[in-house]
Amino acid sequence: MEQFERFNEEKLPREKVFRDPIHGQIIVDNQIIMDLINTPEFQRLRRVKQLGTSSFTFHGAEHSRFGHCLGVYEITRQMCNNFQRNYPSKQPGDGLWDDRQRPVALCAALLHDLGHGPYSHTFEHIFHTNHEQITRQLITSPETNINKILQRVSPDFPHQVASVIDHTYPNKQVVQMISSQVDADRMDYLQRDSYYTGTNYGKFDLDRVLHVMRPVKDGIAFEISGMHAVEDYIISRLQMYLQVYFHPVSRSMEVILDHLLMRAKHIYEHPNEFEPSFTPYMLMPFFNKRFTLDDYLALDDGVLTTYFNHWTHSSDDILNDLANRFMNRRPFKSAIYDQQTADLLPTLRNLIQTAGFDERYYTAVNDSFKLPYDTYNPKASKPQTQIELVQPNGEFIELSQVSTLVASVSGREAGDQRFFFPKEMLQSQQSIEIFEPIYEKFQSYIQNNHIINPEEEK
Amino acid sequence: MEQFERFNEEKLPREKVFRDPIHGQIIVDNQIIMDLINTPEFQRLRRVKQLGTSSFTFHGAEHSRFGHCLGVYEITRQMCNNFQRNYPSKQPGDGLWDDRQRPVALCAALLHDLGHGPYSHTFEHIFHTNHEQITRQLITSPETNINKILQRVSPDFPHQVASVIDHTYPNKQVVQMISSQVDADRMDYLQRDSYYTGTNYGKFDLDRVLHVMRPVKDGIAFEISGMHAVEDYIISRLQMYLQVYFHPVSRSMEVILDHLLMRAKHIYEHPNEFEPSFTPYMLMPFFNKRFTLDDYLALDDGVLTTYFNHWTHSSDDILNDLANRFMNRRPFKSAIYDQQTADLLPTLRNLIQTAGFDERYYTAVNDSFKLPYDTYNPKASKPQTQIELVQPNGEFIELSQVSTLVASVSGREAGDQRFFFPKEMLQSQQSIEIFEPIYEKFQSYIQNNHIINPEEEK
Amino acid sequence: MEQFERFNEEKLPREKVFRDPIHGQIIVDNQIIMDLINTPEFQRLRRVKQLGTSSFTFHGAEHSRFGHCLGVYEITRQMCNNFQRNYPSKQPGDGLWDDRQRPVALCAALLHDLGHGPYSHTFEHIFHTNHEQITRQLITSPETNINKILQRVSPDFPHQVASVIDHTYPNKQVVQMISSQVDADRMDYLQRDSYYTGTNYGKFDLDRVLHVMRPVKDGIAFEISGMHAVEDYIISRLQMYLQVYFHPVSRSMEVILDHLLMRAKHIYEHPNEFEPSFTPYMLMPFFNKRFTLDDYLALDDGVLTTYFNHWTHSSDDILNDLANRFMNRRPFKSAIYDQQTADLLPTLRNLIQTAGFDERYYTAVNDSFKLPYDTYNPKASKPQTQIELVQPNGEFIELSQVSTLVASVSGREAGDQRFFFPKEMLQSQQSIEIFEPIYEKFQSYIQNNHIINPEEEK
Amino acid sequence: MEQFERFNEEKLPREKVFRDPIHGQIIVDNQIIMDLINTPEFQRLRRVKQLGTSSFTFHGAEHSRFGHCLGVYEITRQMCNNFQRNYPSKQPGDGLWDDRQRPVALCAALLHDLGHGPYSHTFEHIFHTNHEQITRQLITSPETNINKILQRVSPDFPHQVASVIDHTYPNKQVVQMISSQVDADRMDYLQRDSYYTGTNYGKFDLDRVLHVMRPVKDGIAFEISGMHAVEDYIISRLQMYLQVYFHPVSRSMEVILDHLLMRAKHIYEHPNEFEPSFTPYMLMPFFNKRFTLDDYLALDDGVLTTYFNHWTHSSDDILNDLANRFMNRRPFKSAIYDQQTADLLPTLRNLIQTAGFDERYYTAVNDSFKLPYDTYNPKASKPQTQIELVQPNGEFIELSQVSTLVASVSGREAGDQRFFFPKEMLQSQQSIEIFEPIYEKFQSYIQNNHIINPEEEK
Repeated sequence: MEQFERFNEEKLPREKVFRDPIHGQIIVDNQIIMDLINTPEFQRLRRVKQLGTSSFTFHGAEHSRFGHCLGVYEITRQMCNNFQRNYPSKQPGDGLWDDRQRPVALCAALLHDLGHGPYSHTFEHIFHTNHEQITRQLITSPETNINKILQRVSPDFPHQVASVIDHTYPNKQVVQMISSQVDADRMDYLQRDSYYTGTNYGKFDLDRVLHVMRPVKDGIAFEISGMHAVEDYIISRLQMYLQVYFHPVSRSMEVILDHLLMRAKHIYEHPNEFEPSFTPYMLMPFFNKRFTLDDYLALDDGVLTTYFNHWTHSSDDILNDLANRFMNRRPFKSAIYDQQTADLLPTLRNLIQTAGFDERYYTAVNDSFKLPYDTYNPKASKPQTQIELVQPNGEFIELSQVSTLVASVSGREAGDQRFFFPKEMLQSQQSIEIFEPIYEKFQSYIQNNHIINPEEEK
Repeated sequence: MEQFERFNEEKLPREKVFRDPIHGQIIVDNQIIMDLINTPEFQRLRRVKQLGTSSFTFHGAEHSRFGHCLGVYEITRQMCNNFQRNYPSKQPGDGLWDDRQRPVALCAALLHDLGHGPYSHTFEHIFHTNHEQITRQLITSPETNINKILQRVSPDFPHQVASVIDHTYPNKQVVQMISSQVDADRMDYLQRDSYYTGTNYGKFDLDRVLHVMRPVKDGIAFEISGMHAVEDYIISRLQMYLQVYFHPVSRSMEVILDHLLMRAKHIYEHPNEFEPSFTPYMLMPFFNKRFTLDDYLALDDGVLTTYFNHWTHSSDDILNDLANRFMNRRPFKSAIYDQQTADLLPTLRNLIQTAGFDERYYTAVNDSFKLPYDTYNPKASKPQTQIELVQPNGEFIELSQVSTLVASVSGREAGDQRFFFPKEMLQSQQSIEIFEPIYEKFQSYIQNNHIINPEEEK
Repeated sequence: MEQFERFNEEKLPREKVFRDPIHGQIIVDNQIIMDLINTPEFQRLRRVKQLGTSSFTFHGAEHSRFGHCLGVYEITRQMCNNFQRNYPSKQPGDGLWDDRQRPVALCAALLHDLGHGPYSHTFEHIFHTNHEQITRQLITSPETNINKILQRVSPDFPHQVASVIDHTYPNKQVVQMISSQVDADRMDYLQRDSYYTGTNYGKFDLDRVLHVMRPVKDGIAFEISGMHAVEDYIISRLQMYLQVYFHPVSRSMEVILDHLLMRAKHIYEHPNEFEPSFTPYMLMPFFNKRFTLDDYLALDDGVLTTYFNHWTHSSDDILNDLANRFMNRRPFKSAIYDQQTADLLPTLRNLIQTAGFDERYYTAVNDSFKLPYDTYNPKASKPQTQIELVQPNGEFIELSQVSTLVASVSGREAGDQRFFFPKEMLQSQQSIEIFEPIYEKFQSYIQNNHIINPEEEK
Repeated sequence: MEQFERFNEEKLPREKVFRDPIHGQIIVDNQIIMDLINTPEFQRLRRVKQLGTSSFTFHGAEHSRFGHCLGVYEITRQMCNNFQRNYPSKQPGDGLWDDRQRPVALCAALLHDLGHGPYSHTFEHIFHTNHEQITRQLITSPETNINKILQRVSPDFPHQVASVIDHTYPNKQVVQMISSQVDADRMDYLQRDSYYTGTNYGKFDLDRVLHVMRPVKDGIAFEISGMHAVEDYIISRLQMYLQVYFHPVSRSMEVILDHLLMRAKHIYEHPNEFEPSFTPYMLMPFFNKRFTLDDYLALDDGVLTTYFNHWTHSSDDILNDLANRFMNRRPFKSAIYDQQTADLLPTLRNLIQTAGFDERYYTAVNDSFKLPYDTYNPKASKPQTQIELVQPNGEFIELSQVSTLVASVSGREAGDQRFFFPKEMLQSQQSIEIFEPIYEKFQSYIQNNHIINPEEEK
């Protein structure tokens, strides 16, 4: 592992510090890390919001992916420090921490979200891009600034970093630092999103979780004395999903964004419909499905909203209207449905179409479910690492075996599925006479934010 | 004041709440306020960062003017509540609080920053726009959504709101709530900027300051028992100026922004230099010095950075380079100078020009000074309201008479003046041989971040 | 309700403020409240720790009942304000808030814990006192300062206040403010204990819970939009029980305290054993089972520890040793047992006795269980009010019907039962040769902090 | 320095953690430190409040010296870590950090306040004890548990630890860690007292101050880049003095305590006046001026208040009344005086005596002044270390040379001198007719909380 020495040759004479509202100080003591942060690829993350449309619900949450990536780096750095201080490996294969893994862990932590674009989830849905693949490319393609810096450590180093992010790196301790049930990524974003939204739900005792974490043979486990801290983390995570990430207004704004981009694509694919000054030059490569890394790197939140801004004046009524709804925050309303009431959706869509809204653009369904925690299940579609606690006698015990609270939520999905529609459908009588009977009919299907069958309720 | 009744007719049956990281809950109990927030004019504030280039120094500070405006509204609301609870006017002219002033106070608070554009300070410098004037227009022009909503209270109401922001409203209590040494505006932004930057300096005891504030004949004064809370606020404000608002890296990025826009304007004014796809359509009205309110409202941070993004590929070397420096955060360096060493600036500019940098675009001076506090001085260029404390026997005493700390800083400006230049000028020998002697000479003028005269130091 | 007017006649011209680390400001605007706080009965609460032996585990938690009582008052005050602002009663029986209930609510809140003595739980166990009964007496006995002040409102007022604390007051909204699943008492202590212990578990969004609370016909319910805030409160409460209130070290110190007082009582009941200077004069009335209110009011934490301090020099070995263990924080160890392993306890006690410890004083069992939440069950030993949410159409729905998380923990008790024994029993071989085989045998019954049957494990 | 190895032999296999509300986690990784904490001498600190009578003003501030001592240890540990990571000594005399100093630094930090008794300041005033001398004895006397544990490191180790506390230890870096303008002691108590009082004034950026601290030849200096953090610390400290430590109500309660102990001493010295059950056995050695270390260690806050509790029933009117005032928080009132108005004090004392109060026990003067910061002045009565900043070129510059704010407060004392008297003197007419003219006269000397000359005011 001579690359460890190469990395250490670039140690800074004095630590540098980024002041961070979540971690206080983020400490960088190596020129390689410093140089990675200073690349255009990494600086671009300042222009991509961490939570996309959530800031329409929680106005405080306007933070970018830049701070989050620094935060994941910082937590990983602290994990390495704790491991090296308390569990230094004495000999290969003893299941303890080999500090020569530090460079790859730190770089993977810093770069794990590098490929995220503006409003990633929606963008990927419409344009079939893939941020994980782009992250990999940004790390391994020889022409990127990132790659050139990583190459200074060793020719193979970029691929090692990418493999950590891909979960294929052989040292599972490093992989689990960045990606597991209790990893640096999640621990940072829960704290950070909690801070910026102004909700308390995401707060857990980070210092304590880090303190009770320890390297074991095939990854990372926790001292049983820290069970409650891990439990609290699991519950905090669940609460953040239910209360922040799944918030119906944010999802509604995402639906509008999705349909807006869909409409723009439709217009593009039916030529001559874009007015010249409304042409989204930087989106062209994506409409054309042939884009380079540079095309991708040119995108950010501001680029998209600049086009939307133009489109608020478009002569295409749907593009114009959806752009206005997005820019001026006029979310769709929504109602919860279930297996039974799903059958009523065609009727509702019909009513909406009759009321003058193109149902392809003005309705949507969206479900948000989250498995709060589960034990390892190789048959699961996305098998997760389970959380193992180390008992005084050295044996492992799986978290839900000792935590009543975790056992209670384990294996049950939490969330809901919703039907989205224009707010206008809930208008009261006095507004527009002509649509009154349609509105009234529609409204008879909605009760207490749920879709109901008005026949059965009688 | 029948407009008070008109306003109250729109009282909401139940309070609505915005969750805010600074104030916890921002409470809205009136449809007028709700509607103002939902206008496109107000929603645009989400796309204008509160601190401009400061987020290049404090990466956490990416918050927009939207949250700040809500915060100023909330603090003003609490002031009205405190005043009404503890100092309700019994008869006109008794110097106590007349709650019929509440509507105008709340609306002025909410809308006081409505006219801010992207990177206001720099933008106004280059394009000679004026955010205060635009705020006034947005409130008083009959075609804006804002104006239409305010008209619901009374035909004269928009002008009343504007006059509070202009300081010409007759009730000085209301004016001072929004604009004075200790106003809702400053109190919100100090707390907010402190929270988002992750510095503690701006924190002071808001609840206590609000508690000791009281209406008096010609404005607002403070119980002497709250002297320390007010004092702490003055010191916090000073610290935020010195440590956050005046940070040399933020000012450096502002210098780059300024010069970048200056260069774009220059190119525009020397036709045919803009490549088609790099044309900043939305800036044209400003280059042409003929812009409408709609042109102004179309601007936001994302629009500017989208053009900068394009310009990073411009064939104009200066535009291209400055755009890259701004987008990828490559600040100029700076050094402090004073009256003596100001004479050396031409020499330094000369060296920079010789090293291949156009000194008009690659150097700048910028001074940032702040008067921490001053007693009222009608001769001052910007006379400030002084802070008056009410003693047990009812007499006033001016703050610096009782606070040693405030007396210490009163009347003395704090800040510095700096000369900005490309980082390259500080390169060490090994880098570029040809410019080595120029660099070396330049560097002999810089010591401990100050400009010195190398002759005298010998 | 002319007593409402009597109370209001004592309104202070200006609000007074207690600075509180949890609520920021505690606001008092009535002389009656001020006078109650200034009584010797209430000031005594400064000398009684809120969490008893918990500060032996969480050294930060040294706060007294004084601050808690002020906090419960403040939360109740805010409840009244919210109710009066959003749900003022228009006519008797409309199920809304009648602000004439405010005086009784505020006084009951302030005084609800007045009868607590030092280390209440243990003290009551040994001396068969009852803090609830004493609270009632302090409020209703005509000779107390408290009673005299309350009488100023009306002759019947003290009894009304006492009946709120007794849950017999006719207005159930008032009763539930002070005592229900989500009452001011619990909401204060969770936040307060969380703050002082330095754990985050007890933090929930108090402002939001207060905001979504509303008066209903037979008590208090919650807007369904605030479901998550209430859910978070339930989980926080559970976590505080499991992690703070049930902490084995605190319980161990409580066991020592219990046995120490038991021994003192034993000595007292077997005359001539107390040395003169070790006589606990102030405890005599309790040994004698004939105590006055004044005897009770003379007690506080310092009085008890002063006697313990004396007893560390007692010639009675057990009294001396237990006093030393308590004063110098030398907790017993403990192990979890269950129905099966309970059978092993006599064997373990036997071993401990053989090792030279009087098992009556050196062992104990203690179980701590908590029902995190339950729906109303009239058959339960302690039937609890269930939490009702109000849906948009005005109908109620019980919390666990909509909260997966609460449903998960509902009806299941959480906690453990433990066997306590001297730490010496876990000594390793080298220490004391003679007891080595006993220790070894004892230790074979303890594994991973549980009592096991060593036979079965083989 | 073989004692360094001896200390390290007792390194714990895994770090232990104290949860602390200020520092989050306090980490102990050595058995010696653990054993010191577990001594009766150290555990006693749990029963001595950190802020004495301040909790009568700030009810939240009931914390003991125990947590503070752990906090000072933790900050010192972090200092050692920072120094060792960034400035490890390469060879003797290079002015960098020699980590073999760590054991003595940690032990001195932990034990620096060990000799504090109950209400130290007042107790020492009355009984002429000296907590610094007792700290030294507890460390160096061979019979203490503390000494025995320290001896495990080396026979000379206890004296080394004591000499750090005495400022005579040769390594000035270690001395200044514990005792200098910016030491671990002050940094802990400012943060801690701020947290518990619920004031924000004492909050400064501890992490940043620690980060910019560095060892230099003769002690400790600060990077100039951290100037603002140090400046903020100086101002925070000043604010805590003015707003918390010098609060007139706390000082008033201290005056009462002082006079109460003075009266008890007087009674003791005039035999037969103490009723048997009121005899303060544990104070006898102090009345007799012959006390042992054990006598001293037996004292704590609870012992004193237990005696005061007894004395509230004493037949000595003054003892009885003062005890009641202290126990039930009935502070004296106070007024500020200056050189001019000091001449009026005899007149005021006279009026008070005439009104029936023994002026020896019912009046007092008390001045509280603090030098916020000063440059080193060998002629000062208590010469302080000045704060030196290290510039980029390695030269030192004294703080007030670069900080306007510190320069403003440097060398000027802040505080006030007050005259204390019974609240009764401010009674209004209706109360007690006979004393009315005296009260009225007295009150003519008090205006806006200052003593004035009523003649001159006319």
